[in-house]
Amino acid sequence: MDIKQEVLKLAQEARNAARCIANVSSKAKDRALLNMAGKLEQKGEYLLEANRKDIAGVRDKGLSSAMIDRLTLNPKRIKEMAAGLQEIAALSDPVGEIVKMWRRPNGLLVGKMRVPLGVIGIVYESRPNVTADAAGLCLKSGNAVILRGGSEAFHSNKAIVSLLKEALIETELPGSAVQFVATTERQAVHELLKLDQYIDLVVPRGGTDLIRLVVENSSIPVVKHDKGLCHIYVDNEADLDMAEEIVFNAKVQRPGVCNAVETLLVHQEIAPTFLPRMIQRLQGSGVEIRGCLQTKTISPQIKEATEDDWETEYLDLILSIKVVKDMEEAMDHIARYSSMLAEAIITNNYSRAMSFLRAVDSAAVFVNASTRFTDGNQFGLGAELGISTQKLHVRGPMGLEDLTSTKYIILGDGQIRV
Amino acid sequence: MDIKQEVLKLAQEARNAARCIANVSSKAKDRALLNMAGKLEQKGEYLLEANRKDIAGVRDKGLSSAMIDRLTLNPKRIKEMAAGLQEIAALSDPVGEIVKMWRRPNGLLVGKMRVPLGVIGIVYESRPNVTADAAGLCLKSGNAVILRGGSEAFHSNKAIVSLLKEALIETELPGSAVQFVATTERQAVHELLKLDQYIDLVVPRGGTDLIRLVVENSSIPVVKHDKGLCHIYVDNEADLDMAEEIVFNAKVQRPGVCNAVETLLVHQEIAPTFLPRMIQRLQGSGVEIRGCLQTKTISPQIKEATEDDWETEYLDLILSIKVVKDMEEAMDHIARYSSMLAEAIITNNYSRAMSFLRAVDSAAVFVNASTRFTDGNQFGLGAELGISTQKLHVRGPMGLEDLTSTKYIILGDGQIRV
Repeated sequence: MDIKQEVLKLAQEARNAARCIANVSSKAKDRALLNMAGKLEQKGEYLLEANRKDIAGVRDKGLSSAMIDRLTLNPKRIKEMAAGLQEIAALSDPVGEIVKMWRRPNGLLVGKMRVPLGVIGIVYESRPNVTADAAGLCLKSGNAVILRGGSEAFHSNKAIVSLLKEALIETELPGSAVQFVATTERQAVHELLKLDQYIDLVVPRGGTDLIRLVVENSSIPVVKHDKGLCHIYVDNEADLDMAEEIVFNAKVQRPGVCNAVETLLVHQEIAPTFLPRMIQRLQGSGVEIRGCLQTKTISPQIKEATEDDWETEYLDLILSIKVVKDMEEAMDHIARYSSMLAEAIITNNYSRAMSFLRAVDSAAVFVNASTRFTDGNQFGLGAELGISTQKLHVRGPMGLEDLTSTKYIILGDGQIRV
Repeated sequence: MDIKQEVLKLAQEARNAARCIANVSSKAKDRALLNMAGKLEQKGEYLLEANRKDIAGVRDKGLSSAMIDRLTLNPKRIKEMAAGLQEIAALSDPVGEIVKMWRRPNGLLVGKMRVPLGVIGIVYESRPNVTADAAGLCLKSGNAVILRGGSEAFHSNKAIVSLLKEALIETELPGSAVQFVATTERQAVHELLKLDQYIDLVVPRGGTDLIRLVVENSSIPVVKHDKGLCHIYVDNEADLDMAEEIVFNAKVQRPGVCNAVETLLVHQEIAPTFLPRMIQRLQGSGVEIRGCLQTKTISPQIKEATEDDWETEYLDLILSIKVVKDMEEAMDHIARYSSMLAEAIITNNYSRAMSFLRAVDSAAVFVNASTRFTDGNQFGLGAELGISTQKLHVRGPMGLEDLTSTKYIILGDGQIRV
């Protein structure tokens, strides 16, 4: 069977499964999720063996040890993967919720009911645990899923999916609710992206190239999960102790993630007092500082920032710093360079806090808190499928609710249109 | 300047205007909308003159008189167009609304604030009034808009937009918040669809070919407005008088629109009593009936329905009728043939009404009411940009709220992530 036929068959089976699991009870879905979790724990050795094949496969490809670490499964990680599925089972089921309902003058009750999207395709380059997370979130929200992971994790992903399917079938749900693209050929992605007749949403997670490939070739609606170039603006009316703690946290606590801060903007009035202590604290934890000319005047030993720095998501212990005239200049800088994921203002000035909240056009806008909170779990949404960097359908962390659509339900007693 | 450059310039100007009008007060937007309305009324003769050029242009192309009628402006229609803008001004502004807000255990307040999408492109083949409606809805929701109408209405659309721009500028808002693609070359659409850097959403409204063109070529997120093939199922526990009124209304009141009924499904138990009176009533208003074999047994004089009939959106005084064993068979028929816009069940059986509501996967599902209510105004949403037939972002009538996104706002007092 050629790739085109194979992908089409996967999608058609997923479409059929979707119609079934859209109408399955919460209890049945939770039973399946808990069985999936148990299965992953019981068959740990099977997963580790598949994972060893992947590790052996990339050894020759010169991947960094950090990347090999990301790819590696071990008993602790398998346990976490299972725990993730148990947590999803514990979340409340969004399907069937009546979001709102109102009465029309003619007596019609018009409401919006949450319903599954249908079939979701996920194209990702990530750790194997994403496979179980994504399948769990889609199942809980009543969707079928088609998974296409990175080639480096192929055997691990395939093994995980085979266990998930087993678990589904054991609890009398269709195994084809979780589909796996069992080829590493890139053509499979291109074929998948044409199947808008069967697939309702495609979510690309990974590098810029992967996301462009999907955005440019998909006739299926896309929710993209792009990079994060986050800013913190420290206002002249900030509590400087608080500012120091927040900036330090946003840069140092986990620098390799999309919600870490990359550029610090500081009001000129407080720059001479704030920057020396801030820079010293950051350098003490190994952060490299790249500053504008004014920053260099205050801390002459640092490297000068170039235009490139304002445009770079370091994902590393590097921070660029710019001194600004006022909040407006900070917001202009953000509008120009931000990836529109998360920005924060540190201030005790009420009206500036409100203006910043209102005017900054990012998925998450913070007052007096760390950008590192940009995360589904931290926001209280439960597990997330990723963080959307587009405006349509969902912006920011994509939780269970965001894997649903709504339909209008209308209750009448014989109304006709006049 | 070539088309590519021209479209790019339009989009860049729209992007700049969007940043401005996203933060403009409701009062300023309403003042502009009322000024737009006044302008259309004052300059009626200018619009009629442009419209006469369009009418002259299509005379030779053999358009039907119905299509020429749709294209024609007259003083009454101009007044209605102005009234539409006044109605939009009277709607409440969705921008800045806090949709919900909750408190996290660490004291963070996390909320979702409604924000404009940014720049919306609309590609349409419709009556000239859509130009003013679409511009008004986008402005009220804080978005800039790029309008690309059908070539047959080119001069009318251009004249309308030039007045809208004048009205914007007079009230000190950027004229480039309403952009018009001033060429009928198809290449302009292709160029537009690539500009995902500047445009946040594209809405195609028109025939199947136009929609496929946009869906297949756009790297910008799309909300499509496709056809309607609607069903009514009359259950064996229906109030037959009510069923007769509703079916008659849904077919006859305005047969040429997407929410009119095309196929009637009737439970076998009541078919012999219900169908003769229903068919007689419909035929009395000139409706052609095409029935399944069982329907023909009951009413031998009617035409037999073919497979094609189940798949056809007539948009005309034609109705196909099928007798079904039970509700499950009706729902199977709907799942197979419906365009998933609107379906209704007529029944007094509570549990079947609830099952139908839950299981039928259409944008609007009715109990005991006419499918003709599938409309933004009828649902109480105010004016609509169209009716979405996809699941992502918005499903069903697309009102002001659906022209917005949300962003997370987070109010802290020094929280850092641990």
